[in-house]
Amino acid sequence: MSIIDFRSDNTGAAAPQIIEAIAAANTGTAAGYGTDEWTTKLQERFSDLFEKKVRVFPVATGTAANALALASICPPFGAVYCSAIAHIETSEGNATGFFGSGTKLVHVDGPHGKMDAARLADIVGAAGVGLTHKSQPAAINMTQATDLGAVYSLDEVRALTAIARTHGLKVHMDGARFANAVARLGCTPAEATWKAGVDILSFGMTKNGGVMADAIVVFSPDVAQQLAFHLRRAGQVWSKMRFASAQLIRYVEDGLWLDLARRSNAAAARIAKELQPAARLLAPVEANEIFVEMPPAAMDALENDGIRFFRRGPRMARFVCRWDTTDAEIRALTGAVARTSVTTAK
Amino acid sequence: MSIIDFRSDNTGAAAPQIIEAIAAANTGTAAGYGTDEWTTKLQERFSDLFEKKVRVFPVATGTAANALALASICPPFGAVYCSAIAHIETSEGNATGFFGSGTKLVHVDGPHGKMDAARLADIVGAAGVGLTHKSQPAAINMTQATDLGAVYSLDEVRALTAIARTHGLKVHMDGARFANAVARLGCTPAEATWKAGVDILSFGMTKNGGVMADAIVVFSPDVAQQLAFHLRRAGQVWSKMRFASAQLIRYVEDGLWLDLARRSNAAAARIAKELQPAARLLAPVEANEIFVEMPPAAMDALENDGIRFFRRGPRMARFVCRWDTTDAEIRALTGAVARTSVTTAK
Amino acid sequence: MSIIDFRSDNTGAAAPQIIEAIAAANTGTAAGYGTDEWTTKLQERFSDLFEKKVRVFPVATGTAANALALASICPPFGAVYCSAIAHIETSEGNATGFFGSGTKLVHVDGPHGKMDAARLADIVGAAGVGLTHKSQPAAINMTQATDLGAVYSLDEVRALTAIARTHGLKVHMDGARFANAVARLGCTPAEATWKAGVDILSFGMTKNGGVMADAIVVFSPDVAQQLAFHLRRAGQVWSKMRFASAQLIRYVEDGLWLDLARRSNAAAARIAKELQPAARLLAPVEANEIFVEMPPAAMDALENDGIRFFRRGPRMARFVCRWDTTDAEIRALTGAVARTSVTTAK
Amino acid sequence: MSIIDFRSDNTGAAAPQIIEAIAAANTGTAAGYGTDEWTTKLQERFSDLFEKKVRVFPVATGTAANALALASICPPFGAVYCSAIAHIETSEGNATGFFGSGTKLVHVDGPHGKMDAARLADIVGAAGVGLTHKSQPAAINMTQATDLGAVYSLDEVRALTAIARTHGLKVHMDGARFANAVARLGCTPAEATWKAGVDILSFGMTKNGGVMADAIVVFSPDVAQQLAFHLRRAGQVWSKMRFASAQLIRYVEDGLWLDLARRSNAAAARIAKELQPAARLLAPVEANEIFVEMPPAAMDALENDGIRFFRRGPRMARFVCRWDTTDAEIRALTGAVARTSVTTAK
Repeated sequence: MSIIDFRSDNTGAAAPQIIEAIAAANTGTAAGYGTDEWTTKLQERFSDLFEKKVRVFPVATGTAANALALASICPPFGAVYCSAIAHIETSEGNATGFFGSGTKLVHVDGPHGKMDAARLADIVGAAGVGLTHKSQPAAINMTQATDLGAVYSLDEVRALTAIARTHGLKVHMDGARFANAVARLGCTPAEATWKAGVDILSFGMTKNGGVMADAIVVFSPDVAQQLAFHLRRAGQVWSKMRFASAQLIRYVEDGLWLDLARRSNAAAARIAKELQPAARLLAPVEANEIFVEMPPAAMDALENDGIRFFRRGPRMARFVCRWDTTDAEIRALTGAVARTSVTTAK
Repeated sequence: MSIIDFRSDNTGAAAPQIIEAIAAANTGTAAGYGTDEWTTKLQERFSDLFEKKVRVFPVATGTAANALALASICPPFGAVYCSAIAHIETSEGNATGFFGSGTKLVHVDGPHGKMDAARLADIVGAAGVGLTHKSQPAAINMTQATDLGAVYSLDEVRALTAIARTHGLKVHMDGARFANAVARLGCTPAEATWKAGVDILSFGMTKNGGVMADAIVVFSPDVAQQLAFHLRRAGQVWSKMRFASAQLIRYVEDGLWLDLARRSNAAAARIAKELQPAARLLAPVEANEIFVEMPPAAMDALENDGIRFFRRGPRMARFVCRWDTTDAEIRALTGAVARTSVTTAK
Repeated sequence: MSIIDFRSDNTGAAAPQIIEAIAAANTGTAAGYGTDEWTTKLQERFSDLFEKKVRVFPVATGTAANALALASICPPFGAVYCSAIAHIETSEGNATGFFGSGTKLVHVDGPHGKMDAARLADIVGAAGVGLTHKSQPAAINMTQATDLGAVYSLDEVRALTAIARTHGLKVHMDGARFANAVARLGCTPAEATWKAGVDILSFGMTKNGGVMADAIVVFSPDVAQQLAFHLRRAGQVWSKMRFASAQLIRYVEDGLWLDLARRSNAAAARIAKELQPAARLLAPVEANEIFVEMPPAAMDALENDGIRFFRRGPRMARFVCRWDTTDAEIRALTGAVARTSVTTAK
Repeated sequence: MSIIDFRSDNTGAAAPQIIEAIAAANTGTAAGYGTDEWTTKLQERFSDLFEKKVRVFPVATGTAANALALASICPPFGAVYCSAIAHIETSEGNATGFFGSGTKLVHVDGPHGKMDAARLADIVGAAGVGLTHKSQPAAINMTQATDLGAVYSLDEVRALTAIARTHGLKVHMDGARFANAVARLGCTPAEATWKAGVDILSFGMTKNGGVMADAIVVFSPDVAQQLAFHLRRAGQVWSKMRFASAQLIRYVEDGLWLDLARRSNAAAARIAKELQPAARLLAPVEANEIFVEMPPAAMDALENDGIRFFRRGPRMARFVCRWDTTDAEIRALTGAVARTSVTTAK
């Protein structure tokens, strides 16, 4: 029996269409290490999707996508500017520093897991460009949707990338939940990325219905030149690449990726609406994650009710919706919170 | 239409059973990053298979398996002894040095891609243990089956691991074609590895019917302690790990892995038999690869006949059999070689 | 003509005794790479000084000392806790991450460049030990004297090292100005370090009268085992090591190091006293540095008066005293500040 | 009493002029980290010496010079071609791989520690440019004088650099004994380096009379751009840089460096002449090192006679002359060898 599971979107199933795409790719022989037809087609399909000739590199994980993307745009003595709660800072076990031979992450405050543009400008301006003892400003990182479940508006993205351009910094977008963000924004993938100044994108698929694959999408030709070598050296180039590429092709076909994202977004929106005003949301619910301030006793009570979720602090509960989150799960959660609120308010 | 494809075993299809295992695992939710039930079961299943409590870490590629296994047993100032034609030396783009922060590969000659035990003893003995300007002996690496398609006998493995033990070196086996080797040896997986002195194994699945996953198997408890952290930092821990673990479980169930390997081994043996004495084999054909000395004109002729294979030198052709190599492909190759021999002998 | 120089203690001359020690060591031949008599004697001399058998490794710079010391006590997936203004964070160009293959620096707030013990305990307690996606707590770093010119009391040191011990963390002290701190504390070098829980020390000499050499002092035998190999690999082992070791021996002979430090400490104390109450000190002046809040116009005025110093913020001036800071320089500075205060107060 | 010391040129004293230069630089204050007047003058002085605007970076050791020079011209997935007995291969404890994040050293055979040009062309030609699984050709390394005491002729240097240019490789010269080579060649420093195609030079001073300092000299402006950052991150930038720069300035003043090198060259030539024909030289003695084939018993006998030298193999003795090798030492060695030959010939 399934549990009531709001732990993460990575606990969910793959979309059946993705499984079918793997099976369908299992025919005949195919050249290894990305020289196959699927991977060639993937380049074309994503170039269409992004309205620009891009290079797409399937990789095993979002951590690999982020760390290798950053290593490709940042020298080893460089600094990457990110939110203090960015995934690359909190949840990737020193990967950025490892792949980047020392790359430093510098925090920039802002609301709801975003970087504030004025704050970024101040910090970069005071960084000490040209001073050899200072980490040199090299890149910025935005998690889109953010690590508190908010979504940068296009204006917000552009405000940050404008500062990056002014200071010669490259722009990386961690799109582990890129589909959720694009679904929310209602814009094109191009508008969400390179048209807004993004150079390189970690394109998430696993959390939104994929099987063991995400991708790096490169918008700036000068950035991509050596990435293929870095990826191979990093053990991130599958010999049977077709099984990753076939998934990614199917993922963006017929808008599947956005359909899946809309489901998890909608589930989160519905929960957020029902939780309020009883619960205090810690960020606007704009994608598929809900962060709620909640006393420990209330969290205990939820767990006793069989709800599975993660505590992100002594008084912070995180609930994540999947593309396959069920109505029953939603009702179970909102019901339990309602009971808990009543109980804890006594 | 399929081509006549002897390029590599990584060009082949996945085994249908493996695809089914992926589909079967696509049910309900599962905890992320290897804390799921499949991955737990995988530990048990491999511990049974290897007759010892082991730790199994699924990874994306053989390069990742090799480089991270070596990094876990070798300090950054260490040396790994391997054949000059070892995969880690010739085909992994500096991965060992990268993951190992400088780890050096030192060549040890021997027949057919093997290291010679006496030569290993001499080289390690002269390495300068304790001298800080010398790369310190740390580990040995055996490719099993070798990179020329031969298979170390258990005596040969034991001779090397005995030297390793004498000098305090750890033992890594690159088992990209481990199934082929075990099928050939007719021994148990335990006999092929830890009973013969192996500490850590790169366990290949992709080349023999898997989808985007290999594994590291750790036999020595002291070696495994930090590997989980290294893997996460390296972007090698899938959030939806169940899809890798489910494959690996199915792969060793009912002897599937050995059945698949026996097919490619048999295909190679049949080809080797038919090619001789016309063609000169560069190593005994003991697994699924055939290395043949062949003049450039003969290789040209084969390609004109539609045979696909890789040239590994000006006069060296490599033919690799897959689990799904067809009779028609075998006949096409042997026929073409026969014609070629006639032609080039004229 | 000399300028009025409060830029740094690294602008000062070497002590004449140190130059003499170099010249005196220039006799006969000596074995290379630290196997000479001077380096052997250095081990003994420092073991006497620290009342414990220690290992001393001369290195070229404080950055090398810090980064290699930390790399020797911290795994590549580890975190080092330090002040947000620690030298390793602000002024060593990603060296810790580079030598540590990713080592992350985590900030712990506290007064005057110190870490607060309670805050450290909280942060380490919430770090997620055992979670592979989290940087694992590995070590703490204290700058002694701090990067704001204060000095940790022995009680403060012990409070931090006690927390480190509780969580299994190693303890590194960045003693770029260790002599100044010991002179201030009036304790023994042993009391200031291993008796208070320090495992490994960056022992500064250059800023306090040396020539091109600092050192790493290791108190815990288990820590030192591999450091010699790391240092050689890092290009930090001089072939003519005697010229570094001879300096370090002389530096601690007859209390020279403390005499030199007392001079710069006294100069700073005198300046601090004369500046007040007109100027607001940003930290207690307990070593040889003075940090003063000062409007930009006042800093401009000082520079116009020929005073050389560094701005550490839009309203923060840093004045550093050397062992050879002259009375004339002190008077010039205090006079100029007095004039400036009058001017800017108008 | 001095021993009879042929162990290495790093066992020798510093030249008195160098010690004097250190003492003379010990006046007044000087800006830190290479922004001082001496280091500025050093740039000019070396630009004069090399008849070209160069950048000079003093560093602590030859290992640092080599590894950082190579890291600045080689991507982490790159290969450096060198002799199998090159110092970077045999004696720097994985430094190249460490600083280069994996950089691989590929051996190219040739006589007397040189690379053979035809062999280099063959190996680079077969390296697999553009194949991501192959280490990509990036640079060549020549030790000048070689690690067997021979000296590349300018024609030999040009033959190698021509191949490098053809394949887009950068050229590094390890000049640990550059003075000895230039003295032997009788050419200008410019002719020995950039005029012959060298991009970057490890300029040795320590072995030939310096104190704790060597240097990197950059001839190609595009190469130098980021090196200053790499050096700082690597802990190779002294705060009191003047003491290194003052040495290097004095070292090349009035031809001191060549005078010193001529002395050790002459000592070696004299020994080589007297040893023959009794002893078999393993390479022409063109600098200050002599490699002699010698049975173990003969080496034992020499040691019993109080001669200090290094065994570089079971039957290979190395004798190195210093700028301050004495006549008495030379006579002691040649006398002992004569006695030994008589004895061992009996």
